[in-house]
Amino acid sequence: MSTPATWLASLVALVIAGAAVGAETLSSWNDGPAKQGIVTFVNAVTQKGGKDFVPESERIAVFDNDGTLWSEQPIYTQFAFMLDQLRAAAPKHPEWKSNAAFNALLAQDKKALAEIGQKPVLELLVTANSGMTVGEYDQSIRNWLRSARHPQLKRPYTELVYAPMQELLAYLRASGFKTFIVSGGSVEFMRPWAEQAYGIPPEQIIGSQQDVSFAMRDGKPVLTRAPQIVFVDDGPGKPVGIYRQIGRRPIAAFGNSDGDLQMLQVTAAGEGRRLMLLVHHDDTEREFAYDRQSHIGKLDKAWDQAQADNWIVVSMKSDWNRIFAFQK
Amino acid sequence: MSTPATWLASLVALVIAGAAVGAETLSSWNDGPAKQGIVTFVNAVTQKGGKDFVPESERIAVFDNDGTLWSEQPIYTQFAFMLDQLRAAAPKHPEWKSNAAFNALLAQDKKALAEIGQKPVLELLVTANSGMTVGEYDQSIRNWLRSARHPQLKRPYTELVYAPMQELLAYLRASGFKTFIVSGGSVEFMRPWAEQAYGIPPEQIIGSQQDVSFAMRDGKPVLTRAPQIVFVDDGPGKPVGIYRQIGRRPIAAFGNSDGDLQMLQVTAAGEGRRLMLLVHHDDTEREFAYDRQSHIGKLDKAWDQAQADNWIVVSMKSDWNRIFAFQK
Repeated sequence: MSTPATWLASLVALVIAGAAVGAETLSSWNDGPAKQGIVTFVNAVTQKGGKDFVPESERIAVFDNDGTLWSEQPIYTQFAFMLDQLRAAAPKHPEWKSNAAFNALLAQDKKALAEIGQKPVLELLVTANSGMTVGEYDQSIRNWLRSARHPQLKRPYTELVYAPMQELLAYLRASGFKTFIVSGGSVEFMRPWAEQAYGIPPEQIIGSQQDVSFAMRDGKPVLTRAPQIVFVDDGPGKPVGIYRQIGRRPIAAFGNSDGDLQMLQVTAAGEGRRLMLLVHHDDTEREFAYDRQSHIGKLDKAWDQAQADNWIVVSMKSDWNRIFAFQK
Repeated sequence: MSTPATWLASLVALVIAGAAVGAETLSSWNDGPAKQGIVTFVNAVTQKGGKDFVPESERIAVFDNDGTLWSEQPIYTQFAFMLDQLRAAAPKHPEWKSNAAFNALLAQDKKALAEIGQKPVLELLVTANSGMTVGEYDQSIRNWLRSARHPQLKRPYTELVYAPMQELLAYLRASGFKTFIVSGGSVEFMRPWAEQAYGIPPEQIIGSQQDVSFAMRDGKPVLTRAPQIVFVDDGPGKPVGIYRQIGRRPIAAFGNSDGDLQMLQVTAAGEGRRLMLLVHHDDTEREFAYDRQSHIGKLDKAWDQAQADNWIVVSMKSDWNRIFAFQK
């Protein structure tokens, strides 16, 4: 039995414990310079009265998604979804049979795709879902995610999130950070599962945007997908997306490819202590290995700058004792 | 002197008090159907186990800014800023002397402006700040806000925020709501002061967007303002902005004009309990009185729908015992 005083003491202890989730949560990270660099940074910016202290409202951390928080090989997950969407829509579009982009896409004919160029391919992909209401589109993503499996790893895609990064997200939030996704993929494709997978709510996801339009239909307001892409959140688009939606410069940025370079540069250019980190895919056994020559997730210029400017480069092979939660 | 037990008890009392900021904070609201409607709604959606309970993550509340959270007459504050910006930029643009839009703007010649139409006026206004870095632009807004005064009310504009709405924002947040601004004005113009005035951080402000572009300049990344408007967050644009940046349907929406109608319609169309509220400007003595015939902040169709659908209409004259914090 507890007296009122010990009951109060327990409550206070709980409150204090809640505020002090610490580096011990990074259990999938091996001890080494990467983990040490993260912890040193977090300690520095959270230590009250310290010279590097940053108030909570300014502790903004941004994460690329594909290849940084979950797997992106052999093709972006959203691209796999879009291909299935195209196949499903094909019976209603007999004219696609003679469409070069359609045929090259379904055959995944890289040479033909390169010759056709990006524009006709994108136009075709956005046509497949234009006219859907945003609710219908959201449902089609949820349905697909439930049944689709990764071709090599044979798992639902939402299980292919990196456990060490999930721990890192939780550690940062427990340290007063607000965490955002800044992805080249579309916001709609991440919203249905990012909260459960990463603890990141829909309003903290920045991504590429296909237009939607408002209309009244049978007295009810509906938002419908239009066939235009209005924002590409990749490369130089990432700092633009951050400026538009966050409006403050991040103090920590996490990526894995040249598409994240400008986001890391903008983060690095702020005053005060900063954390820039790249995930390097070097683990053929547990996931994939690719960098300078890869057709997606190419890590070349960003790697050079990481070397020159002492950004943290994480070796998935040696810095992470597990990659996916199901591995332990 | 306090014993450890009483010290703990005080701490716990503080914690509990912090969590229980309630309807008594609405001290600038007179008792009546408007205040009662707000409190009844908040109690309903926050009561655990109740039939109308809404989990915290879904408690999204959206607020128009001009005319809902602060004064918008005789001209939008941002428009006053833009006119001063034009005047300041004029010496560098001798060609403006023969520009009809420029002359009509500076003369505030409503007839000429109507004849010229919106497009040349907007083009001129965005030209005045294009080429500035986002930091320079932010600084120009801060400088202006420090020195500018409202022509009739003779106060800095940032003092012309409505005290009852500040209390309402605090009350909603204390009840687990996340509060957003959804304004026809630009995000940049609100970010410098909205956190202090409303407790709303930059990343929870949705507004109209002028384009910015990324470039490296002397080895440093910079974002520069471009002369294109890429998003107009007004009328049917408001639900689109909410969809793009929040990605969930609000359960409460607050506006004052027909520009807020679609935002309120989309909020109302969701399942479960909802709160839709319009601020009606009917107080010539303490602020301004305008509605169906006003050239800005016109309240006509939205008023009709409020009557038909029992949305709350706040009379500033009779529902608020003060309008501005400096009035008491």
